[in-house]
Formats: sequence, structure tokens, C-alpha cells
Amino acid sequence: MNSKSIYSKIGVLGGGQLGKMLAQAAADWNLSIEVLDPTPNCPASGSAKQIVGDFKNYDDVISFGMKHDIITIEIENVNLDALKELERLGKTVYPTPSSIELIQDKGLQKLFYQMHSIPTADFKLVESKDHIIQCIASKEIKYPFVQKLRKEGYDGRGVQIIRNESDLDKLFIAPSVIESKVEIEKEIAVLAARNPSGQIITYDPVEMVFHPTANLLLYQECPSSFNEDQKEKATSLANTMIEKMNIVGLLAVEMFLDHSGNILVNEVAPRPHNSGHHTIEACITSQFHQHLRCILDLPLGDSSSWVFSVLLNLLGQPGYQGEAIYKGIEECLAMPGVYIHLYGKKETKPMRKMGHITIISQDINYVKRIAQFVSEKIKVVA
Amino acid sequence: MNSKSIYSKIGVLGGGQLGKMLAQAAADWNLSIEVLDPTPNCPASGSAKQIVGDFKNYDDVISFGMKHDIITIEIENVNLDALKELERLGKTVYPTPSSIELIQDKGLQKLFYQMHSIPTADFKLVESKDHIIQCIASKEIKYPFVQKLRKEGYDGRGVQIIRNESDLDKLFIAPSVIESKVEIEKEIAVLAARNPSGQIITYDPVEMVFHPTANLLLYQECPSSFNEDQKEKATSLANTMIEKMNIVGLLAVEMFLDHSGNILVNEVAPRPHNSGHHTIEACITSQFHQHLRCILDLPLGDSSSWVFSVLLNLLGQPGYQGEAIYKGIEECLAMPGVYIHLYGKKETKPMRKMGHITIISQDINYVKRIAQFVSEKIKVVA
Repeated sequence: MNSKSIYSKIGVLGGGQLGKMLAQAAADWNLSIEVLDPTPNCPASGSAKQIVGDFKNYDDVISFGMKHDIITIEIENVNLDALKELERLGKTVYPTPSSIELIQDKGLQKLFYQMHSIPTADFKLVESKDHIIQCIASKEIKYPFVQKLRKEGYDGRGVQIIRNESDLDKLFIAPSVIESKVEIEKEIAVLAARNPSGQIITYDPVEMVFHPTANLLLYQECPSSFNEDQKEKATSLANTMIEKMNIVGLLAVEMFLDHSGNILVNEVAPRPHNSGHHTIEACITSQFHQHLRCILDLPLGDSSSWVFSVLLNLLGQPGYQGEAIYKGIEECLAMPGVYIHLYGKKETKPMRKMGHITIISQDINYVKRIAQFVSEKIKVVA
Repeated sequence: MNSKSIYSKIGVLGGGQLGKMLAQAAADWNLSIEVLDPTPNCPASGSAKQIVGDFKNYDDVISFGMKHDIITIEIENVNLDALKELERLGKTVYPTPSSIELIQDKGLQKLFYQMHSIPTADFKLVESKDHIIQCIASKEIKYPFVQKLRKEGYDGRGVQIIRNESDLDKLFIAPSVIESKVEIEKEIAVLAARNPSGQIITYDPVEMVFHPTANLLLYQECPSSFNEDQKEKATSLANTMIEKMNIVGLLAVEMFLDHSGNILVNEVAPRPHNSGHHTIEACITSQFHQHLRCILDLPLGDSSSWVFSVLLNLLGQPGYQGEAIYKGIEECLAMPGVYIHLYGKKETKPMRKMGHITIISQDINYVKRIAQFVSEKIKVVA
């Protein structure tokens, strides 16, 4: 019996909502699954055994990993040295430490895109604040630009727009990537999966729909409003990237469509991803089952869908902090095709991801109408 | 906040596969759920906290119930006196102890059918073996007949056919129901759900398909081959029964179609049921989410489906006993639309329910073809 059979002991670094939903999927096949997370009673702890420990700490990751056959992640900011050591000791680590290393560093990622002719915003790697100011003087960097920390950025943190000289005060001092600011027309994401045998599957692209004036994600929809050409281009990029990056597991690829009609890769994540949550109800194979298939070297599952879907993030209401109270659950559950997922985070904070809601139907107008209703009704307060 | 909100502490009597799948569904809404089961590491223990204790024992049920707001069941052979006491003490018990009492006793059930003009096989209640022999002599009972123990029968146990005098040796001695043997043409089951507000929903009838010669359940399919009239009759019977029995929760109603075209109620179960497992992937609302909606007094979920489905039980292969090994998983997961559920029972025994497999597609021929393939490929051995 090899280490990738369904009898394997699976260890997951991170026990947030992604770990939780992975554990829920793992229960279908009675897989042995444990999560490593520093917060006692983390979201995954109700669905998998939690070991309390820090996935950024070398010793914690080593001692956790030694108890498992396969180690995987639900967050990419993990201790890489420990994963490399576990791999050296013969453990199966998916995605591989080398692919996580590439993704942990946004600078390496950009160089990788360049090397493989993957379209992305023009960029320059800089070492320090002084370096940036020097480049502005030499006109190598022009306003407005985007500064992204090379490491440790997560979920929008570590990214900022510098519009003019008066913004220079807030420059990050650590090594960063400077990107030209893209004139964004639309945002699209493609989820790809790859198993150790090299089989690759992609999901239909999803579109992030923003408020027409405020910079606010309203919802995510699938299918997207992109034309067939654009969808094919985005899908093919995701396919190329998961192969070239040699990922085993999932790769979520977030892309922009700019005003000139170019599709540019923005960011990637080598794990289950927010943009794939609709797959739980809307696709034949959910992203969580798919990730398990990948790391167990099982044949990949069908990614197709028979329905339209909209995904809404359930964020902590601004102005409320404390023990979470969910308003409007009952009204929303009364609507056919509404699926509520609460992550079990005890405390709400403004804009904290507390859950998500998927709406599916074979009628696209119904889906949009109910999405509107749900987004007005449901609130997380304290 | 009333006791039926999503913040309620839910206690489930029984932690087998039904409790496990109920806990998996409960995780979506981050419900607090615990199970009471005598077997350490019972199937549900990976997805909910298990209290080791006997659901047939008065003290165990009382002390378990006192820690919860809502008490429900995944098996009907539970300690009824304890449930009545918990109800008296103000706990919410769904289904209610009085409806469980009716269902625990097949004799009371038959009288109930008679009272409400629900078609069922002709019957006589008998107290003892002597009583049966007396009734045979007086021709009140004729060969062949079916003897069902009034209490404690479960999953086919406590039911036997008596064909002639030479079978009399094996008669059960406890009080039982004697039924005329129905000439069965087909078997059908309808799952109904009802919440405390009185809302009722039924699922499409499913059909049990048996081997043409051996008395062996091959698979269950939905939609069934029954005509619209028959389906409507079966559905209406399930609707009437859940209302008249005053059930809060699910009621699975198993029925026969006899050679004369009559639909007769055979057995009922007031809980999630094997015949509803396809709802996890094939219906908008799974039976497990539906049961939770019922006991939490939430609006019921849409029971409709967009696909054809076949459900296969995964039984322990005859001739094998010991630690379970699953053969053919990989080949089956390679087929689109195949969902495997393993219950996590450590030991296999001949014909023990170890899991189930649902196959869905919009093409009925595909579903049947793959069901055949899966049933040949997948085996539980030791």
C-alpha cells in the first residue's frame, strides 16, 4: 500500500474555513485528517482533529508532519524549511515545497511569468524604499503604481496603490514588486487541478462582479460574462501555469481583463480558494474533493456544472466586533437553491470572512434576483 | 432566542452512518452537535463529538439530553421513557416521543393505518406462539404468512416468512404482527419532511430494483418506473402519514405495489433513511439538511432534482470478516458523477452496510451503465 492510498494519514497546515471544508469532504471517504492551527477551536476543529501549533514554526510543522503520510496546506504562508525537511525524510508534501516557495515570493512569481511568457502587469523588483524613490527619479517607475510586498501578503494585505508623491510616506520598506496600475475592465478566476500522474482539469472561469462606483466586490458569478475567446485564453493560462509550476493539488489563478482586452495574471494560490466555493453545490466535483483526489493520486473528478451560480462572501458588518450573531438566515433559507456556509469563527470583526452563500438555479435571472435579496437580508453583527 | 435557533445544542441518539451524515450537514451551518452511541469511535465520531453511552439506557439518555436543547434520533430503538421525561422537563424532542412510540411498535402502527384508512397488508396481532397456532387451526391465519416482531425489529431483523407447517418451529415467541404475504410487483419509498410549523415537503418516490430471480436488492433508482398515478398515490400517502403521525423531522415510507396494482404501506422510519441517501448529491436539499431544517423550525428546503440517480449500498462481501479493505475505489472514482460514501466502520462482516455509492447524470442510460460497472468493481473485503 503506497502512502497515497485512502488509508493515508493526511495532515493539513492551517485549520481555517478552507481546512474545515476540506475535512467535511474527507469525511465522505472516511479519510484520516488532522489540522495544525495555532488558534484553539479553529473553524476546522469541528470536522477534523486539531493539533494546536503554529504552521509558521519549524518545530511545530516537523512534529506535526512526522505523524502523517501526506502533508498539504490550506494557507501558503507556512514554514517552508520544515516542509523541505519532511520531503527529504520521505513524506509526501503536496503542493511540493518548491512550488510553495515560488508562490510565497511574489517577486519569483513575476520572474516565472516572464520566463514562461505568461501575460502579467509590467513590473520591477525593488529592495527598499530608497530604491523605489531612485527609480521614480530615473523614471523607471511612474505614478500611479502598485506596491506588493514580495512575502507575507495575504488576502489583500501587503498590497497598496501609490498615486503620487504624497503617498510615498506609506511605502512598505521590505523588498517588493512594483507594478504598473492596470486599468481593470473585469476580474476573472480559473481553478485548475493536477494530480501526481500529470492529469489536469480546469473549472469554468468565474467572474468577480464589483460595484459600478465603489471598489467593492458584490458577488462572484459562474458562468462569467466573458466571451468564449477570453474564457478559452484564461483557461489555457491556468492550464499552462499549473503544469509549468509543477503543482500537485489546486491552483486558483486570478486574472484581470484590461481596457485594451488583454488578460493579465494577477495572483495565484496553490490550494482551495474562495473563488471555488460555488463548486461545492454547483459542480459535479467540489474543489475540496478535487484537492483530495489530487493529493491521493486518484483520477480527477468531472468539473462540469448544470447550473448558474452566484457566490456571496458573508463579511462581518462594519461597526460590529464581538461574538457573532447571524441575522436573516431564516429568510434566506426559505429561498430554493440558497446554501449557507458558516465558518464557525466565534468573533466577528468589520469585513472579516465569516461564511459564504451560494445560490444555484437553472434560471440565471432567479440566481441574480435571489443574490440581491440575500445580500440585503443577511448580516453578521455582534 | 428560542431553543430551536441555529445556536441550539443538538443531541443525536445514535452515531452510526446516519448520525455521521447528519453531522456533516450540520457543519455547514456551524451547528453544535453531539451524538450518543455505545461503540467508541462510532462512524459519527469523526464529524461530531461523541458521548459514549447507550441510547437504550434511561440514565444515559437523560444525562445526555440534559446537556442539549434539542434531542433527535438516527435510530428508533431508543429509550422512550427517558425521552418522555426530557420532554416533560422542557427539552425539545423531535420526532416527539409519542410519534416514536407509535413507530417502535409495529402492532400500534398497523392499528394506526387501519384507523386512518391507510392501505396496508391484512394483519392480525398475536401474543404468542400458541396464539398463532390457534389462529391457524381456526383459519384466521393462512399459509404463507409474514411474522413481524412488534418491537425491536430493525433492518430486516425480526421479520420472517412462514410458508407451511414445517416452518412453525422457527416462530418468534414475542408479541408479533401476522401479515398476509403480499405478492410484490415493485417496491417504492417516499421521504417526507415536516417542521413544527406544519410545513410538509415530499421527495420524488424512489424505486428499489431487485434481482429478477434472487431476492437481492440490486439498486435504488430515482425517478422510479412507476406511472404518474402510482407516484401520486404513494406521495399522497406519505404526506397523509407524516401529518397524521404528527412527526417533526423526516418520515421514510416504504411501500409495495402488489400484483393487483394496489399500493400498500409496509414500514416507516421517522429519521434520515437509506432510501434518501441519493438526495445528498441529486436533490437541491439533502435529507440531512432537511432534517436539520425540521428540528430547527426553519423553512423546508426544495426537494427537487435535476438528475437521474442510482443508489447502491456497499455491503461487506460474503466470506470476509475483519478490518475492512475497499477494492475498486479508484476505478469507480474515475467515472464522472460517481459519489462514494464510506461510513468508517472498522470491521466488515458479510452483508454489513459499509457505505453507499450514488451515481448521478442527466442521462438515465449512463447512470444505469455506470451502476452496473460500479457494482461489479467495488468490493469490501478483509
